[in-house]
Amino acid sequence: MKAIAASEVAARNDSGYPEPFRSRVLPREKRALGDAFGLRHIGVNLTTLFPGVESSMRHWHDREDELIYVLEGEVVLRTDAGEQVLGPGMVAGFRAGDADAHQLVNRSDRPAVYLEISNRDAADRAAYADVDMACAQDASGRYVFTHRDGSPY
Amino acid sequence: MKAIAASEVAARNDSGYPEPFRSRVLPREKRALGDAFGLRHIGVNLTTLFPGVESSMRHWHDREDELIYVLEGEVVLRTDAGEQVLGPGMVAGFRAGDADAHQLVNRSDRPAVYLEISNRDAADRAAYADVDMACAQDASGRYVFTHRDGSPY
Repeated sequence: MKAIAASEVAARNDSGYPEPFRSRVLPREKRALGDAFGLRHIGVNLTTLFPGVESSMRHWHDREDELIYVLEGEVVLRTDAGEQVLGPGMVAGFRAGDADAHQLVNRSDRPAVYLEISNRDAADRAAYADVDMACAQDASGRYVFTHRDGSPY
Repeated sequence: MKAIAASEVAARNDSGYPEPFRSRVLPREKRALGDAFGLRHIGVNLTTLFPGVESSMRHWHDREDELIYVLEGEVVLRTDAGEQVLGPGMVAGFRAGDADAHQLVNRSDRPAVYLEISNRDAADRAAYADVDMACAQDASGRYVFTHRDGSPY
């Protein structure tokens, strides 16, 4: 079949973050919907964020647009503008190069489910607003996390 | 606020298609969620497809990946592989350059709602499998529809 139930895509529960950040974003379930169809120019994850877990450290991308669309439950969006509670049918977009860093946090008592969407750019880098971390991709497209000065964790 | 209800984004009901194709894809409601946040590298539409209406003529893109995620109702996905009924939580991806053309048709008696997602590439062209139409973008990024031989409608 050409189409599948998104729930059939195997969920990943991992993060390339070093500690002490890694344990703030796990456990989680990410289903790489775009990868399931061999897409190379966009990434689309169906993500389940559990109570108490953060989607990422607060960050922004220099070359990748991001958009999140909430399907179930409730998450708190944190940006320079403050905090906002998002429920089903709400959407937020983060333009590449906009230095207003963002993250989602699940402060509720049940899982939240959302789609996270971006283009893919091998030269993309992420900057982190609140913690001493930086991110770039190596030659194979794997995200590499370092201190802001480039030194390894 | 950084996030908005997707339903708040103004809906467009238009198509650049020439007749007799235009009336097969209208009326429709497309809410350009990515545009609402100034995104330039991805396009994300929240689309309502009404009973009897087709999403597009059956087509494929040479440089843009596409992915659709069904939120409400039921649509029929038509590809070279045949037809498949898609309901909420189902997903289909169409890899750039894969010449298996696709379209969605609402054969039910109620509106269907889905997200349609793609990267944006100014050099992208669409090819149509079943009708004498071709598509490219002009210098301003507007889609221009012609006969397959390039002659105007």
